[in-house]
Amino acid sequence: MSQNQPDKPTVEVCPSPKLFAEIITREPFVVVLADILRATTSICAAFHNGVAAILPVATTEEARALKNQGYMVASEQDGSKLDFADFGNSAFSFTAEAVGGKEVVYCTTNGTRALHIAREAELVAIGSFSNLTALANWLKGRGQNVVILCSGWKNKLCLEDTLFAGALAARLLSGGHFTTACDSVAMAMDLWQQARPDVLGYARKAAHFQRLKNLQLDDVIPFSFKTDTTGVVPVFADGRITDATIKP
Amino acid sequence: MSQNQPDKPTVEVCPSPKLFAEIITREPFVVVLADILRATTSICAAFHNGVAAILPVATTEEARALKNQGYMVASEQDGSKLDFADFGNSAFSFTAEAVGGKEVVYCTTNGTRALHIAREAELVAIGSFSNLTALANWLKGRGQNVVILCSGWKNKLCLEDTLFAGALAARLLSGGHFTTACDSVAMAMDLWQQARPDVLGYARKAAHFQRLKNLQLDDVIPFSFKTDTTGVVPVFADGRITDATIKP
Repeated sequence: MSQNQPDKPTVEVCPSPKLFAEIITREPFVVVLADILRATTSICAAFHNGVAAILPVATTEEARALKNQGYMVASEQDGSKLDFADFGNSAFSFTAEAVGGKEVVYCTTNGTRALHIAREAELVAIGSFSNLTALANWLKGRGQNVVILCSGWKNKLCLEDTLFAGALAARLLSGGHFTTACDSVAMAMDLWQQARPDVLGYARKAAHFQRLKNLQLDDVIPFSFKTDTTGVVPVFADGRITDATIKP
Repeated sequence: MSQNQPDKPTVEVCPSPKLFAEIITREPFVVVLADILRATTSICAAFHNGVAAILPVATTEEARALKNQGYMVASEQDGSKLDFADFGNSAFSFTAEAVGGKEVVYCTTNGTRALHIAREAELVAIGSFSNLTALANWLKGRGQNVVILCSGWKNKLCLEDTLFAGALAARLLSGGHFTTACDSVAMAMDLWQQARPDVLGYARKAAHFQRLKNLQLDDVIPFSFKTDTTGVVPVFADGRITDATIKP
């Protein structure tokens, strides 16, 4: 755990976007972006339901401009759907009927901002509990260094993203294909081990759990902690998110 | 855990100096600085052994200038004692014979830098496992909001400081005198609970444990995780660290 093995790709956890500049991984590396409640969970749901592509934008203004060009727009700020948007940020909105075959513009408080921070990576993949196994297998297949980037909440750490980071790091390290010397990996994995017997019960202590409950947006929480409901691996490149498991 | 109670002082954990700007605590607040391996452990040892005051400096140049003025200097960089210094950064160097009654200039890689970052707080206290109970009681007595600032390693999170943060937060919250809505507090406390039965064994997974071992500076590690070996509460104000438990 405490020393890297030189011949293996490394895993690091970056627990806040503000610490992204501190990562020590050698290039090339893949960033896995996690925003469990709710952006990355929703993006995985959208691809599971056949969205053609997602165009992430960092500002409301960009989202509005693209809406005026005829795009379907998913957008919310601090948990509330914006007036001009087709829907907000719940995984349950991205049904096959709503998004199948379409290109959807997506703007959220934390998630898309973190996507743009991570764009210096060779590739950014979208991680959630829903695509955990598919993503782990895909990362093992690539064999590159991995940085799991937690979106957090306004640059502070958040429990649910850290738990996901621990779950994914555990999968990557368990087979012996990866190595790590990152204390954030060790901590995230231990928290995941502690949470595992009752993840949903454990996640109740997350501050964001309470925030969503107060906004009556908590219906999607149980789904957000359910593992392996989809086999998609959304990846962000050239300004678009597409499913890496679908060959063009 | 997930909602603050408005009439009680709050506890937050800041897991990296780079995230200090993100803390949400209302003023006035006390910062507890933790650099378990080894600056804050050494500072507590120095006061236990009767040092009159410690003058923390952030650069080698300042340390050298004060050495030339006749001060005793403790200074190291990346784990090695600097040539002009009287001693390095081990708690075992700060014996009663060496520092009793003296003013000592102190310069370290991470610790003093974090002290300077935290100076906008009303007061900065020095935390380590060695003064855990004394510090917790002193903080309860003040009744102000508390931010536990982990020095980390080059702005990355480190396990040993996070464990201390969890231990102190648990003490503050257990009596019902404090409240929190900070996920970093929840995570640090859970890691501390996990580590508690064998803290030293648990801390072996810390990357810094390995670094100190490689530098043959690991003799002080068992002492660094031992709780309540002293009753001192060093505090930083007006450029000097003095013991708050000694009335002038």
